[in-house]
Amino acid sequence: MASHTHYLWFETRKRQEIIDITDQVAEQVTRSGIQEGMVLVSAMHISASVFVNDHEPGLWTDIWEWLQKLAPDGPDYNHHRTGEDNGDAHLKSILVHHQVIVPITAGKLDLGPWQQIFYAEFDGRRRKRLVVKAMGE
Amino acid sequence: MASHTHYLWFETRKRQEIIDITDQVAEQVTRSGIQEGMVLVSAMHISASVFVNDHEPGLWTDIWEWLQKLAPDGPDYNHHRTGEDNGDAHLKSILVHHQVIVPITAGKLDLGPWQQIFYAEFDGRRRKRLVVKAMGE
Amino acid sequence: MASHTHYLWFETRKRQEIIDITDQVAEQVTRSGIQEGMVLVSAMHISASVFVNDHEPGLWTDIWEWLQKLAPDGPDYNHHRTGEDNGDAHLKSILVHHQVIVPITAGKLDLGPWQQIFYAEFDGRRRKRLVVKAMGE
Repeated sequence: MASHTHYLWFETRKRQEIIDITDQVAEQVTRSGIQEGMVLVSAMHISASVFVNDHEPGLWTDIWEWLQKLAPDGPDYNHHRTGEDNGDAHLKSILVHHQVIVPITAGKLDLGPWQQIFYAEFDGRRRKRLVVKAMGE
Repeated sequence: MASHTHYLWFETRKRQEIIDITDQVAEQVTRSGIQEGMVLVSAMHISASVFVNDHEPGLWTDIWEWLQKLAPDGPDYNHHRTGEDNGDAHLKSILVHHQVIVPITAGKLDLGPWQQIFYAEFDGRRRKRLVVKAMGE
Repeated sequence: MASHTHYLWFETRKRQEIIDITDQVAEQVTRSGIQEGMVLVSAMHISASVFVNDHEPGLWTDIWEWLQKLAPDGPDYNHHRTGEDNGDAHLKSILVHHQVIVPITAGKLDLGPWQQIFYAEFDGRRRKRLVVKAMGE
């Protein structure tokens, strides 16, 4: 069994951003040399998510508006009594989920025709990290 | 380490359907010969989900009504400017998540007493695919 | 390849509880002897979740209030015609997701600075189970 671990760092200019990381994940799969296995892509912060969906900017706007409706910023969350102001970012992270697993087949990411991997930042403007871990042989 | 990859195809008659795929996943685990490991069950389309829950039709109705409330079809999503009309299906897919991992223990799916694996189609009536990938030994 | 399977049991006093299980998962990783791999932490009941977020009681209150808003108990869910009264617990379980995968790097849980692993019980006061399955070498 082979494994390969790599960390991606982000420091977004805006507080909230969606970033397509498919190529960066694919590069790590190539480096791993793994032909058959799985790669875990997982945010290491609790105010960010990783998801698989469509590379379509209109959809990303829909996703932001939808998340803002279901887990709005602004309310006086209990979490804010700790001095934080990112209660909404935690809830958004739970809603979207913070990780995906992509199968590796014949040495490549085994994604469907429109599937791309995205990092969703809900509380950026500071250095944050994501782990890419491939396992297989 | 052994691995086994299989694709399941769906072409639902209705736009939205929940399909119990536990037996099909179990069959692939048997075929893989894997005794200890994990099996990834992951939709390859961005308007479908895979989830684990209860085989109870009343609950499925509740799930549909609930998803329709939290991510309704109908609104003029930005995504629709591309000519698509399935903005809600993308949001539903994100909400329910598009994949699960089931442990394989002693050669079998290690599920709890009521756990079954479901494919949730949010924009069907066309051929769509799901990947089942087992890893272990 | 090595694997290690362990079951955690819970019987919460309250119907709904969030329990930090990071130490228990870490202990199983140590026992597994695995240096590089992944550990799956997955609820075996369909009215519970596992998630990764912050060990901060104010946030947990926010999460409960938020889940109660998005998937309230009380409504006459179709699922209740079977004699059950936990329709909301099923929806909450789907929303939060029932599992996470944590990478194992250098023999330890490879979590970010504030990441902890939680079991979320949505319909407790009875014995329920969770599987911890580590794979790697």
